[in-house]
Amino acid sequence: MDPRRLSLNQITVNSWSLEQAVAGCERHDIGAIALWRDKIAAAGLPRAARLVRDAGLHVSSVCRGGMFTDPAADPAGVLDDNRRAVEEAAELGADTLVLVCGALHDTDLPGARARVRDGIAALLPHAAAAGVRLGIEPLHPMMIGVRSVVVSLAQALDLVEELEPAHPGHLGVVVDAYHVWWDPALEQQLHRATGKVLGYHVSDWLAGTSDLLTDRGVMGDGLMDLPRLSRQVAGTGYDGPVEVEVLSTRWWGEDPDDVLRLVRKRFEECV
Amino acid sequence: MDPRRLSLNQITVNSWSLEQAVAGCERHDIGAIALWRDKIAAAGLPRAARLVRDAGLHVSSVCRGGMFTDPAADPAGVLDDNRRAVEEAAELGADTLVLVCGALHDTDLPGARARVRDGIAALLPHAAAAGVRLGIEPLHPMMIGVRSVVVSLAQALDLVEELEPAHPGHLGVVVDAYHVWWDPALEQQLHRATGKVLGYHVSDWLAGTSDLLTDRGVMGDGLMDLPRLSRQVAGTGYDGPVEVEVLSTRWWGEDPDDVLRLVRKRFEECV
Repeated sequence: MDPRRLSLNQITVNSWSLEQAVAGCERHDIGAIALWRDKIAAAGLPRAARLVRDAGLHVSSVCRGGMFTDPAADPAGVLDDNRRAVEEAAELGADTLVLVCGALHDTDLPGARARVRDGIAALLPHAAAAGVRLGIEPLHPMMIGVRSVVVSLAQALDLVEELEPAHPGHLGVVVDAYHVWWDPALEQQLHRATGKVLGYHVSDWLAGTSDLLTDRGVMGDGLMDLPRLSRQVAGTGYDGPVEVEVLSTRWWGEDPDDVLRLVRKRFEECV
Repeated sequence: MDPRRLSLNQITVNSWSLEQAVAGCERHDIGAIALWRDKIAAAGLPRAARLVRDAGLHVSSVCRGGMFTDPAADPAGVLDDNRRAVEEAAELGADTLVLVCGALHDTDLPGARARVRDGIAALLPHAAAAGVRLGIEPLHPMMIGVRSVVVSLAQALDLVEELEPAHPGHLGVVVDAYHVWWDPALEQQLHRATGKVLGYHVSDWLAGTSDLLTDRGVMGDGLMDLPRLSRQVAGTGYDGPVEVEVLSTRWWGEDPDDVLRLVRKRFEECV
Protein backbone atom coordinates (compact mmCIF):
# COMPACT_ATOMS: atom_id res chain seq x y z
CA MET A 1 0.00 0.00 0.00
CA ASP A 2 1.19 3.51 -0.82
CA PRO A 3 2.86 4.73 2.40
CA ARG A 4 1.25 8.14 1.96
CA ARG A 5 -2.00 6.48 3.03
CA LEU A 6 -0.55 5.21 6.33
CA SER A 7 -2.19 6.55 9.47
CA LEU A 8 -0.83 5.61 12.88
CA ASN A 9 -3.55 4.49 15.22
CA GLN A 10 -2.23 5.66 18.53
CA ILE A 11 -2.96 2.39 20.34
CA THR A 12 -0.16 0.78 18.31
CA VAL A 13 2.32 2.82 20.37
CA ASN A 14 0.25 2.76 23.52
CA SER A 15 3.08 3.68 25.88
CA TRP A 16 3.48 7.03 24.13
CA SER A 17 1.54 10.15 25.07
CA LEU A 18 -0.19 12.13 22.33
CA GLU A 19 2.83 14.49 22.22
CA GLN A 20 5.20 11.55 21.75
CA ALA A 21 3.00 9.93 19.10
CA VAL A 22 2.83 13.18 17.12
CA ALA A 23 6.61 13.53 17.29
CA GLY A 24 6.96 9.87 16.28
CA CYS A 25 4.85 10.46 13.17
CA GLU A 26 7.11 13.37 12.23
CA ARG A 27 10.27 11.29 12.76
CA HIS A 28 8.94 8.42 10.66
CA ASP A 29 7.33 10.53 7.95
CA ILE A 30 3.80 9.37 8.74
CA GLY A 31 1.21 11.91 7.61
CA ALA A 32 -1.88 10.89 9.56
CA ILE A 33 -2.84 9.76 13.02
CA ALA A 34 -5.87 8.31 14.84
CA LEU A 35 -6.29 9.61 18.36
CA TRP A 36 -7.79 7.91 21.40
CA ARG A 37 -9.96 9.92 23.74
CA ASP A 38 -8.02 9.06 26.89
CA LYS A 39 -4.85 10.41 25.27
CA ILE A 40 -6.69 13.51 24.04
CA ALA A 41 -7.96 14.09 27.58
CA ALA A 42 -4.48 13.65 29.01
CA ALA A 43 -3.04 16.24 26.61
CA GLY A 44 -6.05 18.54 26.81
CA LEU A 45 -8.24 19.03 23.74
CA PRO A 46 -6.97 22.48 22.65
CA ARG A 47 -3.37 21.42 23.05
CA ALA A 48 -4.02 18.14 21.19
CA ALA A 49 -5.59 20.07 18.32
CA ARG A 50 -2.66 22.51 18.23
CA LEU A 51 -0.09 19.68 18.29
CA VAL A 52 -1.55 17.83 15.31
CA ARG A 53 -2.14 21.09 13.40
CA ASP A 54 1.40 22.34 14.00
CA ALA A 55 2.78 18.96 12.87
CA GLY A 56 0.67 19.08 9.71
CA LEU A 57 -0.89 15.77 10.70
CA HIS A 58 -4.20 14.64 9.26
CA VAL A 59 -6.49 13.06 11.89
CA SER A 60 -8.05 9.98 10.34
CA SER A 61 -10.29 9.20 13.29
CA VAL A 62 -11.07 9.68 16.94
CA CYS A 63 -11.43 6.44 18.91
CA ARG A 64 -14.10 6.20 20.12
CA GLY A 65 -17.75 6.97 20.71
CA GLY A 66 -20.44 4.40 21.27
CA MET A 67 -20.88 2.13 24.29
CA PHE A 68 -24.65 2.36 24.04
CA THR A 69 -25.57 -0.99 25.54
CA ASP A 70 -25.42 -0.85 29.34
CA PRO A 71 -29.02 -1.32 30.51
CA ALA A 72 -28.13 0.33 33.83
CA ALA A 73 -26.74 3.49 32.19
CA ASP A 74 -28.81 6.65 31.79
CA PRO A 75 -29.33 7.13 28.02
CA ALA A 76 -29.00 10.91 28.50
CA GLY A 77 -25.59 10.43 30.08
CA VAL A 78 -24.48 8.12 27.28
CA LEU A 79 -25.64 10.70 24.73
CA ASP A 80 -23.79 13.49 26.56
CA ASP A 81 -20.53 11.60 26.50
CA ASN A 82 -20.99 10.81 22.83
CA ARG A 83 -21.75 14.47 22.07
CA ARG A 84 -18.45 15.38 23.71
CA ALA A 85 -16.73 12.82 21.49
CA VAL A 86 -18.37 14.46 18.46
CA GLU A 87 -17.09 17.86 19.62
CA GLU A 88 -13.59 16.48 20.03
CA ALA A 89 -13.67 14.96 16.55
CA ALA A 90 -14.88 18.29 15.12
CA GLU A 91 -12.21 20.30 16.96
CA LEU A 92 -9.49 17.93 15.73
CA GLY A 93 -10.78 17.94 12.16
CA ALA A 94 -11.03 14.14 12.24
CA ASP A 95 -12.42 12.33 9.22
CA THR A 96 -14.55 10.05 11.37
CA LEU A 97 -15.64 9.37 14.92
CA VAL A 98 -15.35 5.61 15.33
CA LEU A 99 -18.29 4.00 17.12
CA VAL A 100 -17.55 0.92 19.22
CA CYS A 101 -21.11 0.14 20.05
CA GLY A 102 -20.89 -1.59 23.42
CA ALA A 103 -20.82 -5.04 24.94
CA LEU A 104 -23.55 -7.41 26.01
CA HIS A 105 -24.13 -6.93 29.75
CA ASP A 106 -26.78 -9.63 30.32
CA THR A 107 -28.53 -12.29 28.24
CA ASP A 108 -30.74 -9.87 26.30
CA LEU A 109 -28.87 -9.60 23.01
CA PRO A 110 -31.82 -8.21 21.00
CA GLY A 111 -32.28 -5.57 23.72
CA ALA A 112 -28.63 -4.55 23.59
CA ARG A 113 -28.78 -4.30 19.81
CA ALA A 114 -31.89 -2.14 20.05
CA ARG A 115 -30.03 0.23 22.42
CA VAL A 116 -27.25 0.52 19.85
CA ARG A 117 -29.74 1.47 17.17
CA ASP A 118 -31.44 4.01 19.41
CA GLY A 119 -28.13 5.44 20.61
CA ILE A 120 -26.86 6.04 17.09
CA ALA A 121 -30.21 7.53 16.04
CA ALA A 122 -30.02 9.98 18.96
CA LEU A 123 -26.40 10.95 18.27
CA LEU A 124 -26.60 11.32 14.52
CA PRO A 125 -28.31 14.75 14.37
CA HIS A 126 -25.60 16.19 16.64
CA ALA A 127 -22.87 14.68 14.47
CA ALA A 128 -24.48 16.10 11.34
CA ALA A 129 -24.80 19.54 12.96
CA ALA A 130 -21.11 19.44 13.89
CA GLY A 131 -20.06 18.21 10.46
CA VAL A 132 -18.72 14.94 11.90
CA ARG A 133 -19.13 11.54 10.29
CA LEU A 134 -19.89 8.53 12.50
CA GLY A 135 -18.31 5.23 11.52
CA ILE A 136 -19.87 2.06 12.93
CA GLU A 137 -17.07 -0.45 13.46
CA PRO A 138 -18.19 -4.06 13.69
CA LEU A 139 -15.88 -5.92 16.07
CA HIS A 140 -14.88 -9.58 16.08
CA PRO A 141 -17.63 -11.77 17.58
CA MET A 142 -15.24 -12.89 20.33
CA MET A 143 -15.49 -9.35 21.74
CA ILE A 144 -19.27 -9.40 22.18
CA GLY A 145 -19.02 -9.66 25.98
CA VAL A 146 -16.48 -6.87 26.39
CA ARG A 147 -16.79 -4.39 23.50
CA SER A 148 -19.48 -4.73 20.87
CA VAL A 149 -22.75 -6.45 20.02
CA VAL A 150 -22.21 -5.26 16.44
CA VAL A 151 -20.21 -8.17 15.09
CA SER A 152 -20.48 -8.22 11.31
CA LEU A 153 -20.28 -5.84 8.40
CA ALA A 154 -23.78 -6.90 7.34
CA GLN A 155 -25.17 -5.85 10.71
CA ALA A 156 -23.35 -2.49 10.60
CA LEU A 157 -24.65 -1.85 7.08
CA ASP A 158 -28.19 -2.66 8.19
CA LEU A 159 -27.87 0.17 10.72
CA VAL A 160 -26.40 2.54 8.15
CA GLU A 161 -29.15 1.79 5.64
CA GLU A 162 -31.80 2.42 8.27
CA LEU A 163 -30.40 5.57 9.86
CA GLU A 164 -28.18 7.37 7.35
CA PRO A 165 -30.87 8.64 4.96
CA ALA A 166 -32.05 11.15 7.58
CA HIS A 167 -28.53 12.67 7.69
CA PRO A 168 -26.93 11.80 4.37
CA GLY A 169 -23.17 11.36 4.43
CA HIS A 170 -22.86 11.40 8.22
CA LEU A 171 -23.06 7.67 8.98
CA GLY A 172 -21.05 4.83 7.51
CA VAL A 173 -18.91 1.87 8.47
CA VAL A 174 -15.31 1.39 9.51
CA VAL A 175 -13.74 -1.79 8.15
CA ASP A 176 -11.10 -3.18 10.49
CA ALA A 177 -9.54 -6.16 8.76
CA TYR A 178 -8.89 -7.92 12.06
CA HIS A 179 -12.56 -7.87 12.98
CA VAL A 180 -14.11 -8.96 9.68
CA TRP A 181 -11.59 -10.99 7.68
CA TRP A 182 -13.05 -14.38 8.68
CA ASP A 183 -16.54 -13.58 7.36
CA PRO A 184 -17.67 -15.75 4.41
CA ALA A 185 -20.02 -12.91 3.40
CA LEU A 186 -17.28 -10.26 3.46
CA GLU A 187 -16.79 -9.79 -0.26
CA GLN A 188 -20.52 -9.54 -0.85
CA GLN A 189 -20.98 -7.11 2.04
CA LEU A 190 -18.09 -4.93 0.88
CA HIS A 191 -19.82 -4.69 -2.46
CA ARG A 192 -22.93 -3.55 -0.61
CA ALA A 193 -20.77 -1.07 1.35
CA THR A 194 -19.87 0.95 -1.76
CA GLY A 195 -19.75 4.61 -0.80
CA LYS A 196 -20.33 3.82 2.88
CA VAL A 197 -16.79 3.02 4.06
CA LEU A 198 -15.38 5.77 6.26
CA GLY A 199 -12.21 4.05 7.42
CA TYR A 200 -10.01 1.01 6.91
CA HIS A 201 -7.82 -0.47 9.67
CA VAL A 202 -5.15 -3.14 9.32
CA SER A 203 -3.14 -5.48 11.55
CA ASP A 204 -2.93 -9.30 11.33
CA TRP A 205 -4.47 -12.41 12.87
CA LEU A 206 -1.78 -14.59 14.44
CA ALA A 207 -2.15 -18.34 13.95
CA GLY A 208 -1.56 -18.90 17.66
CA THR A 209 -3.68 -16.03 18.95
CA SER A 210 -3.54 -16.23 22.74
CA ASP A 211 -5.67 -13.32 23.92
CA LEU A 212 -9.07 -12.03 22.84
CA LEU A 213 -8.09 -8.35 22.98
CA THR A 214 -4.36 -7.69 22.87
CA ASP A 215 -2.62 -10.27 20.72
CA ARG A 216 -2.86 -8.77 17.26
CA GLY A 217 0.00 -9.18 14.82
CA VAL A 218 1.79 -6.72 12.60
CA MET A 219 0.75 -7.03 8.96
CA GLY A 220 2.52 -9.98 7.36
CA ASP A 221 2.91 -11.98 10.57
CA GLY A 222 -0.42 -13.77 10.42
CA LEU A 223 -3.10 -15.48 8.36
CA MET A 224 -4.84 -12.54 6.69
CA ASP A 225 -4.61 -11.90 2.94
CA LEU A 226 -4.46 -8.12 3.30
CA PRO A 227 -3.67 -7.28 -0.34
CA ARG A 228 -6.84 -9.08 -1.41
CA LEU A 229 -8.92 -7.32 1.24
CA SER A 230 -7.36 -3.97 0.32
CA ARG A 231 -8.45 -4.46 -3.28
CA GLN A 232 -11.99 -5.21 -2.13
CA VAL A 233 -12.04 -2.14 0.11
CA ALA A 234 -10.72 -0.05 -2.80
CA GLY A 235 -13.64 -1.42 -4.80
CA THR A 236 -16.03 0.35 -2.43
CA GLY A 237 -14.49 3.66 -3.47
CA TYR A 238 -12.64 4.21 -0.20
CA ASP A 239 -9.31 5.92 -0.89
CA GLY A 240 -8.64 7.59 2.44
CA PRO A 241 -6.13 6.92 5.22
CA VAL A 242 -5.41 3.34 6.23
CA GLU A 243 -4.91 3.02 9.96
CA VAL A 244 -2.43 0.58 11.44
CA GLU A 245 -4.04 -0.53 14.69
CA VAL A 246 -2.04 -3.20 16.51
CA LEU A 247 -3.29 -3.91 20.02
CA SER A 248 -0.54 -6.18 21.30
CA THR A 249 1.11 -6.63 24.65
CA ARG A 250 4.04 -8.14 22.75
CA TRP A 251 4.58 -5.04 20.57
CA TRP A 252 3.78 -2.65 23.42
CA GLY A 253 6.85 -4.11 25.11
CA GLU A 254 9.16 -3.06 22.27
CA ASP A 255 10.73 0.32 21.53
CA PRO A 256 7.94 2.27 19.75
CA ASP A 257 10.43 3.64 17.21
CA ASP A 258 11.34 0.07 16.23
CA VAL A 259 7.64 -0.74 15.96
CA LEU A 260 7.05 2.24 13.67
CA ARG A 261 9.94 1.24 11.42
CA LEU A 262 8.49 -2.25 11.10
CA VAL A 263 4.95 -0.95 10.61
CA ARG A 264 6.05 1.37 7.79
CA LYS A 265 7.93 -1.42 6.04
CA ARG A 266 5.14 -3.96 6.34
CA PHE A 267 2.53 -1.39 5.29
CA GLU A 268 4.29 -1.05 1.95
CA GLU A 269 4.98 -4.77 1.55
CA CYS A 270 1.96 -6.54 3.02
CA VAL A 271 -1.12 -4.28 2.83
CA MET B 1 -34.99 -28.71 28.78
CA ASP B 2 -36.37 -32.18 29.39
CA PRO B 3 -33.50 -34.08 31.05
CA ARG B 4 -34.28 -37.14 28.94
CA ARG B 5 -32.73 -35.22 26.02
CA LEU B 6 -29.41 -34.67 27.81
CA SER B 7 -26.36 -36.21 26.17
CA LEU B 8 -22.97 -35.98 27.83
CA ASN B 9 -20.31 -34.84 25.43
CA GLN B 10 -17.30 -36.66 26.77
CA ILE B 11 -15.00 -33.62 26.61
CA THR B 12 -17.00 -32.15 29.50
CA VAL B 13 -15.43 -34.77 31.76
CA ASN B 14 -12.15 -34.90 29.90
CA SER B 15 -10.16 -36.53 32.70
CA TRP B 16 -12.39 -39.61 32.51
CA SER B 17 -11.74 -42.53 30.19
CA LEU B 18 -14.57 -43.84 28.04
CA GLU B 19 -15.22 -46.52 30.66
CA GLN B 20 -15.48 -43.91 33.41
CA ALA B 21 -17.71 -41.63 31.32
CA VAL B 22 -20.11 -44.51 30.58
CA ALA B 23 -20.25 -45.39 34.27
CA GLY B 24 -20.78 -41.71 35.09
CA CYS B 25 -23.78 -41.54 32.75
CA GLU B 26 -25.26 -44.58 34.50
CA ARG B 27 -24.71 -43.04 37.97
CA HIS B 28 -26.28 -39.73 36.95
CA ASP B 29 -29.14 -41.19 34.90
CA ILE B 30 -27.93 -39.69 31.64
CA GLY B 31 -29.21 -41.65 28.65
CA ALA B 32 -26.90 -40.52 25.85
CA ILE B 33 -23.25 -39.78 25.26
CA ALA B 34 -21.04 -38.22 22.58
CA LEU B 35 -17.71 -39.96 22.16
CA TRP B 36 -14.35 -38.54 21.09
CA ARG B 37 -12.16 -40.54 18.78
CA ASP B 38 -9.06 -40.43 20.99
CA LYS B 39 -11.08 -41.94 23.84
CA ILE B 40 -12.59 -44.54 21.50
CA ALA B 41 -9.08 -45.46 20.36
CA ALA B 42 -7.88 -45.72 23.95
CA ALA B 43 -10.72 -48.08 24.85
CA GLY B 44 -10.59 -49.96 21.55
CA LEU B 45 -13.54 -49.70 19.15
CA PRO B 46 -15.18 -53.11 19.84
CA ARG B 47 -14.89 -52.59 23.58
CA ALA B 48 -16.24 -49.02 23.31
CA ALA B 49 -19.22 -50.28 21.32
CA ARG B 50 -19.88 -53.03 23.86
CA LEU B 51 -19.62 -50.64 26.79
CA VAL B 52 -22.20 -48.19 25.47
CA ARG B 53 -24.49 -51.01 24.31
CA ASP B 54 -24.33 -52.82 27.65
CA ALA B 55 -25.07 -49.56 29.44
CA GLY B 56 -28.06 -48.91 27.18
CA LEU B 57 -26.53 -45.59 26.17
CA HIS B 58 -27.54 -43.83 22.99
CA VAL B 59 -24.55 -42.35 21.10
CA SER B 60 -25.54 -38.89 19.92
CA SER B 61 -22.36 -38.25 17.98
CA VAL B 62 -18.76 -39.14 17.35
CA CYS B 63 -16.34 -36.21 17.56
CA ARG B 64 -14.91 -35.80 15.03
CA GLY B 65 -14.17 -36.11 11.36
CA GLY B 66 -13.06 -33.31 9.12
CA MET B 67 -9.72 -31.48 9.16
CA PHE B 68 -9.72 -31.16 5.39
CA THR B 69 -7.72 -27.97 5.05
CA ASP B 70 -4.00 -28.68 5.38
CA PRO B 71 -2.52 -27.90 1.95
CA ALA B 72 0.48 -30.12 2.79
CA ALA B 73 -1.67 -33.16 3.59
CA ASP B 74 -2.36 -35.89 1.06
CA PRO B 75 -6.12 -35.77 0.29
CA ALA B 76 -6.19 -39.57 0.09
CA GLY B 77 -4.80 -39.80 3.62
CA VAL B 78 -7.34 -37.28 4.90
CA LEU B 79 -10.13 -39.27 3.24
CA ASP B 80 -8.83 -42.53 4.75
CA ASP B 81 -8.87 -41.11 8.24
CA ASN B 82 -12.37 -39.76 7.71
CA ARG B 83 -13.55 -43.12 6.38
CA ARG B 84 -12.30 -44.71 9.59
CA ALA B 85 -14.27 -42.10 11.55
CA VAL B 86 -17.37 -43.05 9.53
CA GLU B 87 -16.79 -46.72 10.34
CA GLU B 88 -16.45 -45.92 14.03
CA ALA B 89 -19.68 -43.92 13.99
CA ALA B 90 -21.44 -46.80 12.22
CA GLU B 91 -20.10 -49.38 14.67
CA LEU B 92 -21.18 -47.26 17.63
CA GLY B 93 -24.62 -46.58 16.17
CA ALA B 94 -24.03 -42.84 16.48
CA ASP B 95 -26.66 -40.43 15.20
CA THR B 96 -24.04 -38.24 13.56
CA LEU B 97 -20.37 -37.93 12.76
CA VAL B 98 -19.47 -34.34 13.62
CA LEU B 99 -17.25 -32.62 11.06
CA VAL B 100 -14.81 -30.02 12.36
CA CYS B 101 -13.62 -28.88 8.99
CA GLY B 102 -10.08 -27.72 9.66
CA ALA B 103 -8.10 -24.57 10.31
CA LEU B 104 -6.50 -22.03 8.01
CA HIS B 105 -2.84 -22.97 7.56
CA ASP B 106 -1.71 -20.06 5.37
CA THR B 107 -3.28 -16.89 3.94
CA ASP B 108 -5.37 -18.67 1.30
CA LEU B 109 -8.79 -18.71 2.92
CA PRO B 110 -10.74 -19.38 -0.31
CA GLY B 111 -8.37 -22.29 -1.01
CA ALA B 112 -8.93 -23.77 2.44
CA ARG B 113 -12.68 -23.45 2.06
CA ALA B 114 -12.50 -25.17 -1.32
CA ARG B 115 -10.64 -28.08 0.31
CA VAL B 116 -13.42 -28.39 2.86
CA ARG B 117 -16.02 -28.57 0.12
CA ASP B 118 -14.02 -31.18 -1.81
CA GLY B 119 -13.27 -33.19 1.32
CA ILE B 120 -16.93 -33.44 2.29
CA ALA B 121 -17.93 -34.28 -1.28
CA ALA B 122 -15.40 -37.13 -1.30
CA LEU B 123 -16.47 -38.48 2.09
CA LEU B 124 -20.21 -38.27 1.64
CA PRO B 125 -20.71 -41.38 -0.56
CA HIS B 126 -18.86 -43.47 2.02
CA ALA B 127 -21.00 -42.06 4.82
CA ALA B 128 -24.17 -42.78 2.87
CA ALA B 129 -23.02 -46.34 2.13
CA ALA B 130 -22.36 -46.89 5.84
CA GLY B 131 -25.66 -45.31 6.87
CA VAL B 132 -23.88 -42.52 8.75
CA ARG B 133 -24.98 -38.89 8.75
CA LEU B 134 -22.33 -36.17 8.57
CA GLY B 135 -22.96 -33.00 10.55
CA ILE B 136 -21.00 -29.89 9.56
CA GLU B 137 -20.36 -27.91 12.72
CA PRO B 138 -19.53 -24.25 12.15
CA LEU B 139 -17.10 -23.09 14.82
CA HIS B 140 -16.67 -19.65 16.35
CA PRO B 141 -14.67 -17.35 14.04
CA MET B 142 -11.99 -16.99 16.71
CA MET B 143 -11.06 -20.63 16.04
CA ILE B 144 -10.34 -20.12 12.33
CA GLY B 145 -6.57 -20.45 12.82
CA VAL B 146 -6.74 -23.59 14.94
CA ARG B 147 -9.91 -25.55 14.11
CA SER B 148 -12.27 -24.46 11.36
CA VAL B 149 -12.62 -22.20 8.35
CA VAL B 150 -16.37 -22.92 8.49
CA VAL B 151 -17.45 -20.14 10.84
CA SER B 152 -21.16 -19.50 10.37
CA LEU B 153 -24.37 -21.44 10.06
CA ALA B 154 -25.01 -19.76 6.70
CA GLN B 155 -21.72 -21.09 5.37
CA ALA B 156 -22.43 -24.62 6.66
CA LEU B 157 -25.89 -24.56 5.10
CA ASP B 158 -24.43 -23.43 1.77
CA LEU B 159 -22.33 -26.61 1.82
CA VAL B 160 -25.32 -28.76 2.77
CA GLU B 161 -27.49 -27.29 0.04
CA GLU B 162 -24.78 -27.92 -2.54
CA LEU B 163 -23.74 -31.43 -1.52
CA GLU B 164 -26.62 -33.12 0.26
CA PRO B 165 -28.97 -33.66 -2.71
CA ALA B 166 -26.65 -36.34 -4.10
CA HIS B 167 -26.98 -38.32 -0.85
CA PRO B 168 -30.27 -37.21 0.69
CA GLY B 169 -30.43 -37.30 4.46
CA HIS B 170 -26.72 -37.94 4.98
CA LEU B 171 -25.44 -34.38 5.36
CA GLY B 172 -26.65 -31.65 7.68
CA VAL B 173 -25.46 -29.18 10.30
CA VAL B 174 -24.64 -29.37 13.97
CA VAL B 175 -25.66 -26.27 15.91
CA ASP B 176 -23.36 -25.61 18.84
CA ALA B 177 -24.77 -22.65 20.73
CA TYR B 178 -21.31 -21.50 21.81
CA HIS B 179 -20.15 -21.18 18.23
CA VAL B 180 -23.13 -19.42 16.68
CA TRP B 181 -25.01 -17.49 19.36
CA TRP B 182 -23.45 -14.09 18.46
CA ASP B 183 -24.61 -14.22 14.83
CA PRO B 184 -27.15 -11.51 13.88
CA ALA B 185 -28.34 -13.82 11.08
CA LEU B 186 -28.85 -16.80 13.40
CA GLU B 187 -32.64 -16.79 13.61
CA GLN B 188 -32.97 -16.41 9.85
CA GLN B 189 -30.41 -19.16 9.22
CA LEU B 190 -32.09 -21.53 11.68
CA HIS B 191 -35.30 -21.03 9.76
CA ARG B 192 -33.37 -21.99 6.63
CA ALA B 193 -31.96 -25.02 8.50
CA THR B 194 -35.36 -26.65 8.91
CA GLY B 195 -34.93 -30.40 8.55
CA LYS B 196 -31.15 -30.07 8.29
CA VAL B 197 -30.13 -29.96 11.97
CA LEU B 198 -28.43 -33.18 13.09
CA GLY B 199 -27.28 -32.08 16.52
CA TYR B 200 -27.54 -29.33 19.12
CA HIS B 201 -24.78 -28.59 21.65
CA VAL B 202 -24.96 -26.29 24.65
CA SER B 203 -22.59 -24.60 27.10
CA ASP B 204 -22.30 -20.86 27.86
CA TRP B 205 -20.23 -17.83 26.88
CA LEU B 206 -18.58 -16.30 29.94
CA ALA B 207 -18.52 -12.50 30.11
CA GLY B 208 -14.84 -12.57 30.98
CA THR B 209 -13.78 -15.29 28.52
CA SER B 210 -10.02 -15.65 28.91
CA ASP B 211 -9.09 -18.39 26.43
CA LEU B 212 -10.08 -19.03 22.83
CA LEU B 213 -10.53 -22.79 23.26
CA THR B 214 -11.01 -23.94 26.83
CA ASP B 215 -12.91 -21.32 28.82
CA ARG B 216 -16.52 -22.26 28.17
CA GLY B 217 -19.08 -21.88 30.91
CA VAL B 218 -21.75 -24.21 32.21
CA MET B 219 -25.22 -23.24 31.02
CA GLY B 220 -26.53 -20.35 33.11
CA ASP B 221 -23.11 -18.92 33.98
CA GLY B 222 -22.76 -16.68 30.95
CA LEU B 223 -24.38 -14.35 28.44
CA MET B 224 -26.30 -16.73 26.20
CA ASP B 225 -30.10 -16.85 26.12
CA LEU B 226 -30.26 -20.62 25.74
CA PRO B 227 -34.04 -21.02 26.21
CA ARG B 228 -34.60 -18.65 23.27
CA LEU B 229 -32.09 -20.50 21.11
CA SER B 230 -33.56 -23.86 22.11
CA ARG B 231 -36.97 -22.68 20.91
CA GLN B 232 -35.46 -21.64 17.58
CA VAL B 233 -33.69 -24.98 17.20
CA ALA B 234 -36.94 -26.78 18.05
CA GLY B 235 -38.51 -24.73 15.26
CA THR B 236 -36.22 -26.49 12.76
CA GLY B 237 -37.84 -29.78 13.75
CA TYR B 238 -34.83 -31.06 15.66
CA ASP B 239 -35.99 -33.08 18.66
CA GLY B 240 -32.97 -35.32 19.27
CA PRO B 241 -30.33 -35.40 21.99
CA VAL B 242 -28.88 -32.14 23.28
CA GLU B 243 -25.19 -32.45 24.03
CA VAL B 244 -23.58 -30.62 26.91
CA GLU B 245 -20.08 -29.79 25.67
CA VAL B 246 -18.09 -27.71 28.14
CA LEU B 247 -14.42 -27.35 27.20
CA SER B 248 -13.05 -25.70 30.31
CA THR B 249 -9.80 -25.98 32.20
CA ARG B 250 -11.71 -24.62 35.21
CA TRP B 251 -14.32 -27.41 35.17
CA TRP B 252 -11.78 -30.06 34.18
CA GLY B 253 -10.13 -29.28 37.52
CA GLU B 254 -13.26 -30.22 39.50
CA ASP B 255 -14.58 -33.63 40.51
CA PRO B 256 -16.39 -34.91 37.38
CA ASP B 257 -19.27 -36.21 39.47
CA ASP B 258 -19.81 -32.71 40.84
CA VAL B 259 -19.69 -31.36 37.29
CA LEU B 260 -22.32 -33.86 36.15
CA ARG B 261 -24.62 -32.96 39.04
CA LEU B 262 -24.35 -29.28 38.10
CA VAL B 263 -24.75 -30.00 34.37
CA ARG B 264 -27.92 -32.01 34.98
CA LYS B 265 -29.41 -29.27 37.15
CA ARG B 266 -28.57 -26.46 34.77
CA PHE B 267 -29.76 -28.46 31.77
CA GLU B 268 -33.23 -28.54 33.28
CA GLU B 269 -33.18 -24.93 34.48
CA CYS B 270 -31.25 -23.00 31.82
CA VAL B 271 -31.54 -24.77 28.46
